Amino acid sequence: MMQPLPIRFVLVDTSHPGNIGAVARAMKNMALTDLVLVNPRVFPDAEATARASGADDVLASARVVPTVAEAVADCSYVMATTARERDHYFRVLDARDAALQLVERAREAAPGAAVAVLFGTERFGLTNEQLAAAQALLRIPANPEYQSLNIAMAAQLIGYEIYMARRDGTGASVLAPREAPLAAADDYERLYEHLQQVMDEVGFRDRTQSGTHLMARIRRFLNRAELDTNEANILRGLLTAIQKRRRVAGGQTP
Amino acid sequence: MMQPLPIRFVLVDTSHPGNIGAVARAMKNMALTDLVLVNPRVFPDAEATARASGADDVLASARVVPTVAEAVADCSYVMATTARERDHYFRVLDARDAALQLVERAREAAPGAAVAVLFGTERFGLTNEQLAAAQALLRIPANPEYQSLNIAMAAQLIGYEIYMARRDGTGASVLAPREAPLAAADDYERLYEHLQQVMDEVGFRDRTQSGTHLMARIRRFLNRAELDTNEANILRGLLTAIQKRRRVAGGQTP
Repeated sequence: MMQPLPIRFVLVDTSHPGNIGAVARAMKNMALTDLVLVNPRVFPDAEATARASGADDVLASARVVPTVAEAVADCSYVMATTARERDHYFRVLDARDAALQLVERAREAAPGAAVAVLFGTERFGLTNEQLAAAQALLRIPANPEYQSLNIAMAAQLIGYEIYMARRDGTGASVLAPREAPLAAADDYERLYEHLQQVMDEVGFRDRTQSGTHLMARIRRFLNRAELDTNEANILRGLLTAIQKRRRVAGGQTP
Repeated sequence: MMQPLPIRFVLVDTSHPGNIGAVARAMKNMALTDLVLVNPRVFPDAEATARASGADDVLASARVVPTVAEAVADCSYVMATTARERDHYFRVLDARDAALQLVERAREAAPGAAVAVLFGTERFGLTNEQLAAAQALLRIPANPEYQSLNIAMAAQLIGYEIYMARRDGTGASVLAPREAPLAAADDYERLYEHLQQVMDEVGFRDRTQSGTHLMARIRRFLNRAELDTNEANILRGLLTAIQKRRRVAGGQTP
């Protein structure tokens, strides 16, 4: 019997309830049970239950939430599936390397924390906004002339690689040891809100594009840094110091 | 573009035409095209075509034959899928090792010859008679408490392992390409000097340890982010905005 590991599959805006059931079955086949549904079109549904086959327990315990942010709030590491081979901002790992990372990070997760894999809609994948919580992208190697994998097939393959990575024992450690647990998505959100306040207060704006764009850039590279909670606190502390000093100096006006 | 390799999937006594279509799609996703159907209950069928999605070419070229013997007559190596972990007569390889064997044997196959993977019925697998043509068994590692994989899922996983085995040794994980060159050590030094200035100006110090220690922490996680020059400039711009605003507000004193 395998020890449980806190690895979550998050299905975002899924159109077909049958796919949700098939994902539940694929997860259970690979000893995974934590399923979260973001804004599914139809759920629960008879078609989902039929396709889940013997995995109705996974389906029954699935949580439904309205946003990706809520789905990963307690997650210290988030990977998003993609069909792209390269990306401007994210590291792209193939499914095998990604599974090793996920397992290792799940093993070192703080009590109550989890790691997550995001799956986008059947037709359009994930939006940039939904990608904001991700630390890296996961890609399944496939025929370049016919890449379009069904979502349940993708979940099956990723679950399988996770199963293989767990089975093969510890493997070579690739991560630097941490003195504190990784920051969770919630910690990042508070950090980015705080940073946005300071940016507004000092009038730091993108000269060529919208402020949203600038913030998105900053989020991407800070996500990439994979901050631990101490490091996130250092940044929060610096932001607080900047705000205090400005107020002491009488710089209250925006 | 991958060189074609003579690897055949053989579906035996398949009950559900939808599964045949899903297998065709899974094969094409993994750059396989040679599909043979032994005695399918219903074929062709609208459900098979629907599930094949963009892989109707694989479906259209599928051959239908009455026996396993006929399906593998030209095959120099045959593996049969199984759910058993051990077997009295056959070697049992897991899907990864099996894929390496299949690819190697397909590469050394004589012109006109092929290697084959047999898939049994959804409910009962393969009979001993059908196994008679096999050289070895292939097993997909899965949750011992819930092993029952859908036939199309099994074809997807085996096809994926074959695809991975065919790929050149080097992994396909790639780093995010940059829109700007990576920041050089010099750029980092200027950034950190600038940051130290702002930290001094706002009186942000380590309460428990020396300022050097705090700066070392920040350097570590910003280094980890692997900033490009644009990203380093965004941070420099933010620091400058913070300093300007403080000076405008009269906050010149340290």
